[in-house]
Amino acid sequence: MALRTRLTEAFGLRHPIVLAPMDPAAGGALAAAVSAAGGLGLIGGGYGEHDRLTREFAAAGNQRVGCGFITWSMARDPSLLDAALARAPAALMLSFADPAPFADRIHGAGIALICQVHTLAQARRALEVGATAVVAQGTEAGGHGLTARGTLAFVPAVADLIARERPETLLLAAGGIADGRGLAAALTLGADGALMGTRFWATREALIHPAAKQRVLAATGDDTVRTQVYDIARQRPWPAAYTGRLLRNAFIETWHGREDDLRAHAAERGRAVTEADAAGDYDVANVTVGEAVGLIDDLPEAGALVRRIADEAEACLLRNARLVAAS
Amino acid sequence: MALRTRLTEAFGLRHPIVLAPMDPAAGGALAAAVSAAGGLGLIGGGYGEHDRLTREFAAAGNQRVGCGFITWSMARDPSLLDAALARAPAALMLSFADPAPFADRIHGAGIALICQVHTLAQARRALEVGATAVVAQGTEAGGHGLTARGTLAFVPAVADLIARERPETLLLAAGGIADGRGLAAALTLGADGALMGTRFWATREALIHPAAKQRVLAATGDDTVRTQVYDIARQRPWPAAYTGRLLRNAFIETWHGREDDLRAHAAERGRAVTEADAAGDYDVANVTVGEAVGLIDDLPEAGALVRRIADEAEACLLRNARLVAAS
Repeated sequence: MALRTRLTEAFGLRHPIVLAPMDPAAGGALAAAVSAAGGLGLIGGGYGEHDRLTREFAAAGNQRVGCGFITWSMARDPSLLDAALARAPAALMLSFADPAPFADRIHGAGIALICQVHTLAQARRALEVGATAVVAQGTEAGGHGLTARGTLAFVPAVADLIARERPETLLLAAGGIADGRGLAAALTLGADGALMGTRFWATREALIHPAAKQRVLAATGDDTVRTQVYDIARQRPWPAAYTGRLLRNAFIETWHGREDDLRAHAAERGRAVTEADAAGDYDVANVTVGEAVGLIDDLPEAGALVRRIADEAEACLLRNARLVAAS
Repeated sequence: MALRTRLTEAFGLRHPIVLAPMDPAAGGALAAAVSAAGGLGLIGGGYGEHDRLTREFAAAGNQRVGCGFITWSMARDPSLLDAALARAPAALMLSFADPAPFADRIHGAGIALICQVHTLAQARRALEVGATAVVAQGTEAGGHGLTARGTLAFVPAVADLIARERPETLLLAAGGIADGRGLAAALTLGADGALMGTRFWATREALIHPAAKQRVLAATGDDTVRTQVYDIARQRPWPAAYTGRLLRNAFIETWHGREDDLRAHAAERGRAVTEADAAGDYDVANVTVGEAVGLIDDLPEAGALVRRIADEAEACLLRNARLVAAS
């Protein structure tokens, strides 16, 4: 069996599953594994470093993968975008700032532009700049985002907007999706596929310390929180409304709500976080996962995971159709 | 056609749709209209007033309806629970505090107990007290709730908990559901039905000023916010983590973030809010709706709405099964 949607048709995929371009988890090996299994893998370009970009595209080998950037950070060195486009990626994804300054270059290179949005206003902007696909991300998602919208009511609202204003645009749902039920629900809400981060964070290929992955296995979805404490410690100049959804730990318990104190010691705390990450101490370093963490209890290979989620979604859609009875 | 689920079987419904017991919107007429159309109507018992309870059960006439309370408020006068149980309601729903002190009396009266939960920890407690049904409510929902969980990842997590620990328990999804896509998604995620507030708030029968209903037609899901400002103005002693999701207006713009100032003038501001509500001034009074408000563009009769949502959900489930293709 296979799930056929506008996304699978447009990108030539076997499954309507896209890997979120997580930095640092989504390296070339993870992106390639997702693409090889019939999904679409996106390398996490993150804040933007040429060395990382070169290394991870190389790690993806000959697999067709895409790449995603934190737009406001990439904007400080737009040669990163040129470097990514030179790789002829399957798609270029922009998140967390207005995509307009970069849309023309991406369109001009003939590359599919994916815009992540967190509000209906941002979705309108993505349609204006001619996005190939819009990712409607709810606040459940791990990592950076807004508290503005939950995935369940946001996806159909963006679907309605697309149908009214630019129906050729593809729609991906993101935030809280980690299994076949979530993928099937995303399609039910009007999406053409799902973009998943947290679920692929917990795979063998993810570029994450094994000790952090172990924390995910023990956590429930009640255990995450949106906070700015790590961005303050690392002195990352995020726009004010953006927070990161993370697994609660001792560092967050200490500093969340004491942001002004933390700012006064940011350099020192930032060094401690970097050292803790290298040492695998996740009482201090961050574990960047969303509410879907409660649906995860293994660390599979990414390719097997893609196939499992697709199989679950197909079975789920067929089973639910049987709830409709003649009466 | 009909949608058959464990919920429709257990309660003898035609559609797996439950009216949220909103105070004051869900009066007897609205609850009766939902039940008459084949859903399950719940009267909003709210903070608890005997006069209101008597009046609204009378307004429901002979229709089989249930009732819901704000548990911590009802606990100040438990004779309210006795009065509700004496009506032999279709179900008694408890929200926003530990249901344990009241569960035995509800079970003893042979009445179905519905417990609304906002975290997995609360869901566990609901199973411990033998809830007939658990409502897994995401933060998208209008009115009071927590920011802890979004609906999309929360419902399958509660479904898994129920399957492991007490599989006979029914599961309702709530928060962000306002049409057939949302109901179909809820079933896809493992729920047996959906509890809807905001969508029924915008019906002819809802006990809400016409001027407030008009505001809903113009709003998008970006326009709501969780805040405590009205609870402060009305001097309602809500447990600290609970906020109300409301449509943004001038009152919220003025006081949200200035809660200490508001507390100092609560009595005066509370009177102004009460007067504004009576006068239909929703720059000052609250419009209590969730993110699903963006999916609403009419004010139908509740019975026609129940049938429309069920028809949409059925069509949606059948259509999505066709995405699964032999390959």
